[in-house]
Amino acid sequence: MTYQHPAADTHFVLEHLVQFDALCQRTGFDQVDQALADAVIEEAGRFASEVLAPSNRVGDQQPPTLGPNGVEQTPGFKAIYQSLAEAGWIGLTAPESHGGQGLPSVLGTAVNEIWQSANLALSLCPMLSQGAIEALAHHADDSVRDLFLPRLASGEWTGTMNLTEPDAGSDLAAIKARAEPDEDGLYRISGQKIYITWGDHQMTDNIAHLVLARLPDAPAGIKGISLFIVPKFRIDAEGNALGANAVSALSLEHKLGIHASPTCVMQYDGAQGYLVGAPHQGLKYMFTMMNHARQAVGVQGLAVSQRAYQQARQYASERVQGRRRDGSKICIIDYPDVRRQLLTMRVGCEAMRALALVASSQLDRAACDPESAALAQWYTPIVKGWLTELSVELTSLGVQVHGGMGYVEETGAAQYLRDARILPIYEGTTAIQALDLIGRKTLADQGQIAEQMIAQMRVDCAGDVLMEQAINTAEVALSELLAGHVDDPELAPAVAYHYLMHLGYLCGGWLMVKSARVAQAQLDAGVGDGAFLRAKINSAEFYGYQLLPRATAHAASMRGGSRCVMAMPREQL
Amino acid sequence: MTYQHPAADTHFVLEHLVQFDALCQRTGFDQVDQALADAVIEEAGRFASEVLAPSNRVGDQQPPTLGPNGVEQTPGFKAIYQSLAEAGWIGLTAPESHGGQGLPSVLGTAVNEIWQSANLALSLCPMLSQGAIEALAHHADDSVRDLFLPRLASGEWTGTMNLTEPDAGSDLAAIKARAEPDEDGLYRISGQKIYITWGDHQMTDNIAHLVLARLPDAPAGIKGISLFIVPKFRIDAEGNALGANAVSALSLEHKLGIHASPTCVMQYDGAQGYLVGAPHQGLKYMFTMMNHARQAVGVQGLAVSQRAYQQARQYASERVQGRRRDGSKICIIDYPDVRRQLLTMRVGCEAMRALALVASSQLDRAACDPESAALAQWYTPIVKGWLTELSVELTSLGVQVHGGMGYVEETGAAQYLRDARILPIYEGTTAIQALDLIGRKTLADQGQIAEQMIAQMRVDCAGDVLMEQAINTAEVALSELLAGHVDDPELAPAVAYHYLMHLGYLCGGWLMVKSARVAQAQLDAGVGDGAFLRAKINSAEFYGYQLLPRATAHAASMRGGSRCVMAMPREQL
Repeated sequence: MTYQHPAADTHFVLEHLVQFDALCQRTGFDQVDQALADAVIEEAGRFASEVLAPSNRVGDQQPPTLGPNGVEQTPGFKAIYQSLAEAGWIGLTAPESHGGQGLPSVLGTAVNEIWQSANLALSLCPMLSQGAIEALAHHADDSVRDLFLPRLASGEWTGTMNLTEPDAGSDLAAIKARAEPDEDGLYRISGQKIYITWGDHQMTDNIAHLVLARLPDAPAGIKGISLFIVPKFRIDAEGNALGANAVSALSLEHKLGIHASPTCVMQYDGAQGYLVGAPHQGLKYMFTMMNHARQAVGVQGLAVSQRAYQQARQYASERVQGRRRDGSKICIIDYPDVRRQLLTMRVGCEAMRALALVASSQLDRAACDPESAALAQWYTPIVKGWLTELSVELTSLGVQVHGGMGYVEETGAAQYLRDARILPIYEGTTAIQALDLIGRKTLADQGQIAEQMIAQMRVDCAGDVLMEQAINTAEVALSELLAGHVDDPELAPAVAYHYLMHLGYLCGGWLMVKSARVAQAQLDAGVGDGAFLRAKINSAEFYGYQLLPRATAHAASMRGGSRCVMAMPREQL
Repeated sequence: MTYQHPAADTHFVLEHLVQFDALCQRTGFDQVDQALADAVIEEAGRFASEVLAPSNRVGDQQPPTLGPNGVEQTPGFKAIYQSLAEAGWIGLTAPESHGGQGLPSVLGTAVNEIWQSANLALSLCPMLSQGAIEALAHHADDSVRDLFLPRLASGEWTGTMNLTEPDAGSDLAAIKARAEPDEDGLYRISGQKIYITWGDHQMTDNIAHLVLARLPDAPAGIKGISLFIVPKFRIDAEGNALGANAVSALSLEHKLGIHASPTCVMQYDGAQGYLVGAPHQGLKYMFTMMNHARQAVGVQGLAVSQRAYQQARQYASERVQGRRRDGSKICIIDYPDVRRQLLTMRVGCEAMRALALVASSQLDRAACDPESAALAQWYTPIVKGWLTELSVELTSLGVQVHGGMGYVEETGAAQYLRDARILPIYEGTTAIQALDLIGRKTLADQGQIAEQMIAQMRVDCAGDVLMEQAINTAEVALSELLAGHVDDPELAPAVAYHYLMHLGYLCGGWLMVKSARVAQAQLDAGVGDGAFLRAKINSAEFYGYQLLPRATAHAASMRGGSRCVMAMPREQL
């Protein structure tokens, strides 16, 4: 099964929803424009189809193994990783001063969709390096940054994130890992970290582990957590490897999906590490990375759904079932309900792509505009939560389109569902995203940004009956939330999930209507690819009838308030 | 992980929604009453918890293998199967005249939920035997029936269903398997059948394969298909085995789930078989079995969701994450969104159980009442389609409740999702169920039964604001469908899925409100278990806010008509 990136759709979103050229000019990317973006995306698409996509099944069937030398990755992955690094893809958005390409976040997001569609489990590795790059670029002292960042940006080393411990998952306050200052100005890190993605492998000469741990004088709770960077092999001041550090992968998890991505239990026994930034600021640093990391996981949801859609579409257009009255054979793609399933996947992906890129562009704007920073933070839990929840449904639909064949592993359809199932869990579960959205991003500013976004949608969708109805519902839901939470502290956590999903479907509807209006204007003006533009209008109509009603259903669920969630006695649960 | 059947809920549904005692009296089961049903259910629950449930993970991890003697099942399964057979469970609803227990269908359904919760992959095997029993009891000549039925009812042999061929899945008209009359009055069956569940094993001395095939003089299409029964070992007139028949399992599928259930490609090379009933009537016979078989698959959806719910509940009540302000540790079951997830699972199961048992009771009534027969047929696609679609969501929620642990296979949560994923596919995909419901069960009688059901709901739910709104929507959706399909032949197939899901959520809401009203009346009268009855009222309220809004969303999707599904050009799909 090959993969082909839908470049025309990415182009459309960048040009018309993100307004990429204007964005670049306003945010200081003077050398960058839409033509460059198109070229980058085209090349990434080619590379992904030819190099990454064919390895996706291999990784599922031949997961990494743990041996005496640590984790051995899936056969063939080292060469693929290295060609990705050598082509400069890993540091696409890293600062040019440290060997990166210095391109905007939103372009990095567009390209990340491509890698994640082609091979989600493999592409998790550079995605984590990008998180480490982000952390170092913003928070590390010069010496630590200069030592690690260029090697991460070039892909010479990979990066990992070590947060979770056996008793500290969603609750990072419970972190126990320790860091003792050393005589040479470094630190000795000890403790166990779990669920460490790509925690070990043989694809690069070294691995840089970002680790949350507590200094001896640290206050209790989240204000006593510091961020360290711990190389797999100890290094000298030039970054040359000196020998093994006291860190190793103890075991690998046997997971439902993303088999090719080694999920490690990591043991630190006084491993030499470097403090990133100031002591006790680790969680703050993690939070500044989180917008990128969480949006990146949202994009994984889009990516795996897009891949599943392409495979389902191909199967449906080849699979013959039944005959017409004239005796001609029918491919299942011509059955209305198969069309409905494929359109749900296709249109869902379009809406997700539009939202992911619009949200990501706010991260670029955020660098020079505090209002955009607040907006980017508002989008982040929606992108992470809604896209990943939807991806589980859409990849499951991909199985359904295949019928019995979808249940047979050889077809490959089931892999996308298995891979997607982690996305609403890692990098903060949907519940965590929902609490973030309803608390820090809504109630904390008395709903200002939410109101402003809804008002923007009303302007952009004026005259669209279905969106106007949905917006009316959204306004009522928001005002009931703002009024109700004052006297009912359980209201917000009880309705948070529905609030997030409600806004996700609403944002999708907004951007689809906006897209359809651009498309209509282009058709009226006689410019652009008519077939593509007419399809965009069809997609928006499909979304309005088939996906947007869910926004209203989620708002209706909010009306149950805290009572309908909290009334059942615990022993009756 | 143990399993405990929620007997109190089954009792409640049987007593108050099915009105089991009245049903037994009206349908000639004079010796059967609620007390007997309770005793049967209690014993099945005990047997399932102790014997079947512990083997569920084993089957997932040690699937059957194909060797020179055919398929070797999961270790330990033979003993479990035989104890199930020896206790008389397999022929629970088979006629007493042929060695069965002669109990009502609805009680068989209640008990089947238990087996399927405890071990879905294993229990598929007796479920298929029950289908074969059904076919033989209704359609076979005396000699064939007497030869096979008692051995199937006792569990001495197992039964299989051989319908699908490589080019004949949902489209049975394309079946190619051949049957040649033999000199001894039997037939020689040849051809290949795929996806044959429990097509071979070593648990019993013989296996009776029901096979659809064409006689030499058969008309083309579905009117030329006959039903045969083909034993794995040829038998004499007393049923003693004579030697291998020309049928064997060629290969096993490597599936996403139900690993312990061998899914075989079966090869028939002139295998000796017996004609069931009259020639060319095979599809008709299959259809009479289908109400049972499809409802039984719906019950699997309930069953696997109930098991997933129990495991998620246990995990959530033990898993500590975070602390209260007073320093006490919090189990995740106390977080509102975890409660929401668990309640969605719990209440979803309650609604599914209510609908499954009410629908199944119509199969009992159908024997003496043609109106009930039509009603049973109306329920069947809803039970199959809605329960299985919902089961994929609920088992997925079970993974989500576990967080990262849910993605690790050792936890067992993921198995329920993998197992559930086949349910909306086999025994007719949801699309097939939806076409059946909207065509044969709705448009064919000008919506009479649907209108009658909605009218009944209006009576039963009078005064319940949420249900009244949903019923209003349902009436509009039905009348628009009846009016619109006349001039638009694509309307019905385009909206069929949403019509089915809409009615599924509506039926669930109806039975939950009905249950809550019974519970309130009992509380008012001071009878029954107060905690159970109050929980039933809480469940109904939760359903009204959290699940019923989906009924309206599906109706809203129907309003898109055929246009929103059919407008997109095929090359743009």
